[in-house]
Amino acid sequence: MTASGGDTQHGIRRRNLARVLRTVAAQGPVSRPAVAARIGLTRAGVAPLVDELLRAGLLVETGRAAPSGRGRPGSELAVSDRGPAGIGAEIGVDHLAVCAVDLRGRIRARAATDAVNRHSDPGPVLRRLSALLAEVTAEIAAEGLRPAGLAVAVPGLVARGTTTVVHAPNLGWRAADLAPGLASVTAPGRDARGIPLTVENEANLGALAELRLGGDGDGRPGPPPDFVHVSAEIGIGAAVVVDGQLLRGARGFAGELGHVPVYPDGHPCDCGGRGCLEQYAGERAVLRAGGLTPERSAAAHPGPGARIALLARRAADGDAATVRALHEAGTALGIALAGAVNLLDPRAVVLGGALAGLAPWILPSLERELALRTAVAADPGRAGGPLVTVSRLGADGPLLGAAHAALQAVLDDPFASCTSAHSPRS
Amino acid sequence: MTASGGDTQHGIRRRNLARVLRTVAAQGPVSRPAVAARIGLTRAGVAPLVDELLRAGLLVETGRAAPSGRGRPGSELAVSDRGPAGIGAEIGVDHLAVCAVDLRGRIRARAATDAVNRHSDPGPVLRRLSALLAEVTAEIAAEGLRPAGLAVAVPGLVARGTTTVVHAPNLGWRAADLAPGLASVTAPGRDARGIPLTVENEANLGALAELRLGGDGDGRPGPPPDFVHVSAEIGIGAAVVVDGQLLRGARGFAGELGHVPVYPDGHPCDCGGRGCLEQYAGERAVLRAGGLTPERSAAAHPGPGARIALLARRAADGDAATVRALHEAGTALGIALAGAVNLLDPRAVVLGGALAGLAPWILPSLERELALRTAVAADPGRAGGPLVTVSRLGADGPLLGAAHAALQAVLDDPFASCTSAHSPRS
Repeated sequence: MTASGGDTQHGIRRRNLARVLRTVAAQGPVSRPAVAARIGLTRAGVAPLVDELLRAGLLVETGRAAPSGRGRPGSELAVSDRGPAGIGAEIGVDHLAVCAVDLRGRIRARAATDAVNRHSDPGPVLRRLSALLAEVTAEIAAEGLRPAGLAVAVPGLVARGTTTVVHAPNLGWRAADLAPGLASVTAPGRDARGIPLTVENEANLGALAELRLGGDGDGRPGPPPDFVHVSAEIGIGAAVVVDGQLLRGARGFAGELGHVPVYPDGHPCDCGGRGCLEQYAGERAVLRAGGLTPERSAAAHPGPGARIALLARRAADGDAATVRALHEAGTALGIALAGAVNLLDPRAVVLGGALAGLAPWILPSLERELALRTAVAADPGRAGGPLVTVSRLGADGPLLGAAHAALQAVLDDPFASCTSAHSPRS
Repeated sequence: MTASGGDTQHGIRRRNLARVLRTVAAQGPVSRPAVAARIGLTRAGVAPLVDELLRAGLLVETGRAAPSGRGRPGSELAVSDRGPAGIGAEIGVDHLAVCAVDLRGRIRARAATDAVNRHSDPGPVLRRLSALLAEVTAEIAAEGLRPAGLAVAVPGLVARGTTTVVHAPNLGWRAADLAPGLASVTAPGRDARGIPLTVENEANLGALAELRLGGDGDGRPGPPPDFVHVSAEIGIGAAVVVDGQLLRGARGFAGELGHVPVYPDGHPCDCGGRGCLEQYAGERAVLRAGGLTPERSAAAHPGPGARIALLARRAADGDAATVRALHEAGTALGIALAGAVNLLDPRAVVLGGALAGLAPWILPSLERELALRTAVAADPGRAGGPLVTVSRLGADGPLLGAAHAALQAVLDDPFASCTSAHSPRS
């Protein structure tokens, strides 16, 4: 999503507005001269852009004098904590969640509910999600924020550039366009302003969150620009990031790690294949291997993360079957990831979603397989395979990634969705 | 490799020279106004660029009047069949080959020799290759062509942007910098002009050849911009092409399909892993499974492609062990490629190298596995998995890809390697 307009004067101005906004968003409170230096414009060139963004309420003056010694001291600039908010939503197999993030990247509202979405129709699921969205939207409106866009994370394949879920096996959805079911939020009639809708695979959004928020803010860096992000909820997905960009594949279906064959003659999979990773490292497979019944566990421990917490608890207590099940899940993950690493040569593998919470029991066997099976590409002096890291964001990744993706459109083109009255003067 | 120079007038001129040259190279004989229209410049803007390229001998006038009705008729333009040539070289496990391609894309000279490079030292191999290179260079010099660059295809991992083979298991090379051993060709002393050297994985160059030459010239299109190119000589490699560009990986090691685990508890592999694809679909594995001894077969049928031809002959004759071995190789390839397709969602899988000649016996089981194991991403109305095609270039792909890669530098920046006397006037 980049600002349109080509090389016309209007297009250049729109791009420069975006650069100023993104610079202030990334740097925190910052002086006008620092912004100018950062984006390579003169102070005189930056001034009208800043004024435009101040008038639109996207930037604010902090009131604190900028420390710069040269010229008339000006107030430092910051992005507004009012104005546009990115709305992220997540449709999980057993939960729905919504959050709103402001331009400063802070979560301003959040709502979630347990749900039984497995093999449900999209209609009722989207109605419940719309209710959650209305709740969050009302909450942020009271603080002077308005939705700038909505991105929805789904555990399935989304046709590239569309709002259609082509196949979400664990929801049982096929060829489901989510736009009509969310119209009450995104196109609420001609009096209210509509907002753009994005539907995206949850692993892709988890990877975007990792790219943006993966560092810990205390200097620990986020992931390198080439990594494979493994995400698990009920199913297992992955996202491939190359040079800081998602690799989406020809149709938008890249990253189906859960259906990479691990034991080709192994367990049959719902997808029609055999021995897919999901049959060894998916939540249901691990519960079963640990001596539990997935259905009974789901009934006794409903809600997102509840069975993962159960598994972690049993493993921490030393339950042998659970420890063995997680060890075997790690082995299967290591085999599948060895294939991915041999094919893609990423700098790192990031374990996100539910896997983050189970890392202590999964990592040893995973890393062993990965090192064993990627030795052909081992650098001299390095044990082999890339660095495996565990996401700090855990199961929150896809939801946060969705909210940030929804906000990105504003950062890329601050006035794109404005009526002519609000558009920048060219 | 793009023309440098940024947005200075000089830089823009260099880029426009490259655009004119590439347009004429791609379009064949073409009029000046057609070139101007193609690249979006005025006829007056194109004229001095064409003159510059004519003076440098990169373009020629065909003498045939351009059919354009408007203005003064001019002679059509074509790229020269003299001047710069791309030199491609291939270091195979059992052969060495060199070829030269002119700006028109025609092979102008070619030399090859059988060789026993397995577990050899790089020194003697590069000396023999240098002799072949000298032979080809002398041959094209007699026709008014001069080497513009040399690209060398190797069956191994090359560190991104370097001339160092990090690991070529079937050659037994580790951390071998090829530049010193090829200096007599690339930097032949201060009297002769040196040429740039590129070292590249052979599967990557096979994929580049496929991109450039994959169509049949009679309208059959080449591969789509997103494909996985599988290449087999003795080992098995692959190249991943995304949006028409090679995906190289963080270190340059992407595409190691031969070491993707297929049967994780299967045969041990030289790489230290187990059950790698190469142990089921590599040449030695197929010979063994077909009841032949790889070493004895190599002695009786030396040279590139000889054992592949042997296998094809036996299969065509209905030898049951060979047919079964190729069927099993196809199964293993299908399993490994199913992983790749689930991860990358390419539009097509192209079988190149030795696999092209064995396709009739490999394809049925390969396609069966691929369809079975990629059904989760099957479009409604499509059987599943991407289109599998067989390269027309076969075992020639990497060598041709190397020659074209060497020439690409000229097409991207026609005057880059010139001394100041030859550089374009800015």
